[in-house]
Parts: sequence; structure tokens; C-alpha cells
Amino acid sequence: MESAINVLVAQFKTFASKDGSSHTLSKEEFQTLVVSQLPNLVKNASDPAVIDNLMSSLDENNDGELTFQEFWQLIGKLASTHGGFSQ
Amino acid sequence: MESAINVLVAQFKTFASKDGSSHTLSKEEFQTLVVSQLPNLVKNASDPAVIDNLMSSLDENNDGELTFQEFWQLIGKLASTHGGFSQ
Repeated sequence: MESAINVLVAQFKTFASKDGSSHTLSKEEFQTLVVSQLPNLVKNASDPAVIDNLMSSLDENNDGELTFQEFWQLIGKLASTHGGFSQ
Repeated sequence: MESAINVLVAQFKTFASKDGSSHTLSKEEFQTLVVSQLPNLVKNASDPAVIDNLMSSLDENNDGELTFQEFWQLIGKLASTHGGFSQ
């Protein structure tokens, strides 16, 4: 499991460091990540409304940036649904 | 990222299905998973007190079983610390 966790951390950092804070995802970074890394788990990610809705549902302090913990909640929900676990 | 997420889901299911509910981790299943899968992220996992403390901090409804979402919070915290993100 540790190698899989390390992959997720490293990928988050790669996308988060494209602009501004290297520890948070801007909306643009988030969209780029979702489109390229989560093509099966998030449908229609090229639609700005899909990204806007996801972003606002995750960005708990509404600062327009996603922290690792905020992002982690998204992939947990996606994994839970995909894995067939009840919410 | 999706393949890493799938690994985490599949490993959770493998350990969760060892006894009782195949969708939740009993304390024994949780300890087996932590010892074998998270040896660097969780130290001293063979110590029952370490597992007891982790389990009680995660088991939000105190039913003695960890759901996937409860488990996901743990690895998110471990990944966040390991990745150098502020909490």
C-alpha cells in the first residue's frame, strides 16, 4: 500500500507545483490533474461546470485552492463509490 | 492515479474479507493490514496499544469495525505527514 500512497502524494505535488503554492491545487491545476489522472473516476472533467462544482464542494475554506487533505476527501469518495462501499 | 487508487481499494478488500463483514476491518484485520502494508508509515504496529489507539481514533461510530471511509482518513493523515503537508 505504501507505494500506492507515495504515488498519490507525488502526483499531487507534481500538479500542485505547476503554479503558485506547490502545496495546493489551483482550479486550473485541479482540472489538469482530474482530466489526465482520473479519466474514469470523474466523467466530463473538461466541462468547466463539473470542475467548478467539484472544487466548491471540496474547498472547505473557499480560498480557491485545494489542500492535500481536501483533495484526499475527493479521491476517498471516488474510491468508495468505485469500490462499491456504502457511503 | 487511478491504478494507485485501485490498489488501495483492492488491498482494503483483501484484508477486510478475512473474517466477518467483507466491507469493514475488524481490529485483528486492521492490525494485520497495518503491520504488513504500512510498515514505514506506522511504527510499532505490533504493539496492541498502538493499534488500540489508532483504531479508537478512527472508529467514529465506535462499533469496533473500520469502514473504508474511516480507513481512508488514516492513510490521508499518514500521507499528509509523510508528504510534508501542513495539517
